[in-house]
Amino acid sequence: MKGNTVFFTNTPAVISSAAVGGKMEGDGPMCQCFDKINEDPFFSCETFEQGESKLLKEAVLHALSKASLNPEGIDVMLGGDLLNQCVGTTYGIRELDIPFLGIYGACSTVTEGLMLASLFVDGGYADRALAVTSSHFCAAERQYRFPLNYGGQRTPTSQYTATAAGALVVSAERLPPYVRAATVGKVVDMGVKDAANMGAAMAPAAYTSIRQLLQDTGLTPEFFDAIVTGDLGKVGSRLLCELFERDGVDIRSLHRDCGTMLYSFEEQDVHAGASGAGCAASMLCGYFVPKLRSGEFKNILFAATGALLSPTVNAQGESIPAISHAVWLSFESGSAMDIKFKKM
Amino acid sequence: MKGNTVFFTNTPAVISSAAVGGKMEGDGPMCQCFDKINEDPFFSCETFEQGESKLLKEAVLHALSKASLNPEGIDVMLGGDLLNQCVGTTYGIRELDIPFLGIYGACSTVTEGLMLASLFVDGGYADRALAVTSSHFCAAERQYRFPLNYGGQRTPTSQYTATAAGALVVSAERLPPYVRAATVGKVVDMGVKDAANMGAAMAPAAYTSIRQLLQDTGLTPEFFDAIVTGDLGKVGSRLLCELFERDGVDIRSLHRDCGTMLYSFEEQDVHAGASGAGCAASMLCGYFVPKLRSGEFKNILFAATGALLSPTVNAQGESIPAISHAVWLSFESGSAMDIKFKKM
Repeated sequence: MKGNTVFFTNTPAVISSAAVGGKMEGDGPMCQCFDKINEDPFFSCETFEQGESKLLKEAVLHALSKASLNPEGIDVMLGGDLLNQCVGTTYGIRELDIPFLGIYGACSTVTEGLMLASLFVDGGYADRALAVTSSHFCAAERQYRFPLNYGGQRTPTSQYTATAAGALVVSAERLPPYVRAATVGKVVDMGVKDAANMGAAMAPAAYTSIRQLLQDTGLTPEFFDAIVTGDLGKVGSRLLCELFERDGVDIRSLHRDCGTMLYSFEEQDVHAGASGAGCAASMLCGYFVPKLRSGEFKNILFAATGALLSPTVNAQGESIPAISHAVWLSFESGSAMDIKFKKM
Repeated sequence: MKGNTVFFTNTPAVISSAAVGGKMEGDGPMCQCFDKINEDPFFSCETFEQGESKLLKEAVLHALSKASLNPEGIDVMLGGDLLNQCVGTTYGIRELDIPFLGIYGACSTVTEGLMLASLFVDGGYADRALAVTSSHFCAAERQYRFPLNYGGQRTPTSQYTATAAGALVVSAERLPPYVRAATVGKVVDMGVKDAANMGAAMAPAAYTSIRQLLQDTGLTPEFFDAIVTGDLGKVGSRLLCELFERDGVDIRSLHRDCGTMLYSFEEQDVHAGASGAGCAASMLCGYFVPKLRSGEFKNILFAATGALLSPTVNAQGESIPAISHAVWLSFESGSAMDIKFKKM
C-alpha cells in the first residue's frame, strides 16, 4: 500500500460481469445493461428475502456462464448484501459449493468485493475470484423503513433501493478491464442523522476516498474518463462536487453517479435517485465494465459508497457513519504504465 | 490455493492480540485470559449497542498498545460483528481513522479476519493489518431472540452469547505465532431449523473445513497440539467428534471448543456453552495465541464457526446455513517446514 491504496502489480482482469434487475430497473433508461430482468418482485419465491437470494444467485450464474465457467472454476467468492446477517447472499449461494468470504460494506460492497477478489488473484492465491452483491427494494423497505403495505410517504431526499444484483469474475487472464489500484476507505461520520438523506451522509466518505486514490496514485481527475460514485443520488452528488470545489477542483463534467443513472427522474418516482448495494454493482457490471472492455472508456475511478447505519442505532439518536472504497479500472494492463511502488 | 486452502509463504506473524470481556467472562474459568473485564454491561454508555462498540474499540486499543502501535501504524483493519449492519464494529472504530474493510462471518469472523489480514501482509500489500470482532449478550438476545426484560426461558441446547471482543495485529515481523495456512469455508446447510441449537447447525461446517485443511496441507490431526472449534458448545462438539468418527478418525483427545471453555458449566447457567463472535475471538486472542507465543503449543488448527441465519428468514421457516474458516497457527515460521505449493 501507498497511503491507503493497494497497487496491483499483476493487474488482475475482470473477465466477466453480469447484472440482474427487477421491474423498475427494466423500465428505466439502463434496461439494456441487465442480463436479465425479473418482473416479479418475489422472483417466483414465497418471500422478498428468498427473492433477493434468487436474484443474487442469478447474477452469479450469469457471470459464470459469460466466462464459460462452472462454480468449481471459482477459487473464492466474496459477497454480502443489505439484509440483516447478509442472508440475501448466504442463502443465495449455499447450493453453489464455492469457498466463501462474507463482506459487509452496505452499498460500497461491490468495490470491497472487487478489491479483495483482485488481492486474491494479484497475490497468486487464487486463479479466479468472484465478487457479488445485491439489494431488493421490498426487502430493504421493510427492514430499514416501513413495510410497503404501510404506504409510508418518502421524503424528497430519500432514494429508491434498487432491486438488482451484480457479479464479477476476476482472473489473471489478459482481458480488459484491469484492476490497477484500490483505495481502502475509512469510516467517515460528519454527523448526519437523517436516514432518509443517505446521500448527504455518504458524500464526505466518497470525497475522502476519491481524493485519497488521486493522491496515492498521483493521477489527476482529468486522467479518468469518469469519476463514478455508487449511490449518492441528487443530493449527495451535489455535495460531493461542492466538497471538491472547496479544493479548487471541478469534477462536475467527469462525475457520474450510479444513483442518478439507474432510473428516469422524469418518468419514475424515485425522489433523489437510486440506492442499494445492487445499484452500484449493476451499473459497474452492466454499464462501466462493458464500456471499459470495448475501449470506449480507457480509465475510470469507481467509488461505491455505503451508509453504515442500522435502524436500531439510528433510532437511538446516532449519526450515520459512511464508507467508500475506490477502485481504478483501466482498459490497459499494468505493463502500459509503470507502478513504481507496491508498499508504503 | 491448494484445494480451498491459502498457504502463506511469507508466514505472517500475529505480533499482538488482546481480549476484553464482560462480567460473566470475568467470573468464568478463563478470566485470566482477558486484558480487561467490564462489570457494567452498558460499558458506561446509554445502550447495549453503544456498549458493544466500546467493548470492540477497547480490544483494538489494547491490541495496539501491546504492540506499541498507534492507529496510524495499521494499514488496514478487518472487522465485523453480530449486530445488524455490523454497527458494533463501525461505530466502535469510526474515530480511529484506520482504513477499514467490513466482514461478516457471524461467529466465524475472527478467522475470516485473521485470514484476510494475513493475506494483506503475506502479499506485501500491508505492513500491518488488524482483525477484530465482538459480541454482546444483551444486544444479541434482544436482536436474535427476546429482550432480556421478557424473561424468556432458554432451551437446554441454547448457548450463551459472550460479551467479549478480540483483536489481533498481523505483521511481517518475526514473532510467533505465525499464520501458516488458512482454509476458506463453504456454506454448509444440513437442514437444522432450530435457532436454539446452533451447535448442531455449525458442526457440519466445522467438520468440512477442518477435514479440508488436513487434506490440503497433508497434515494429520496428531500433528496439532489442539484442533479448536469456535463455539459449537456441548451439542455441536459431540456431533463434530461423531462426524470424524464416521471417517475412522478420533479427534476427541485433541478437540477443544471455545464454547465449552469460556464458562463453568457447574457454576454458570450457560446451558450448552458459550457462543458469539467474541467467544472464539477472545479465546484465540487471550488463550491460544499466548500459548503459541510461549511455545507451550507448537501448532494448532483453529476453526471458528458461524451460523449464518437471520431471525427474519428463520421465522419464514428456513434452515440455518453455517460456515467455518480454519487457520493453521504455528510456533515455527514457514522456513521450518517447506510449503511446496502456493497455488492450486
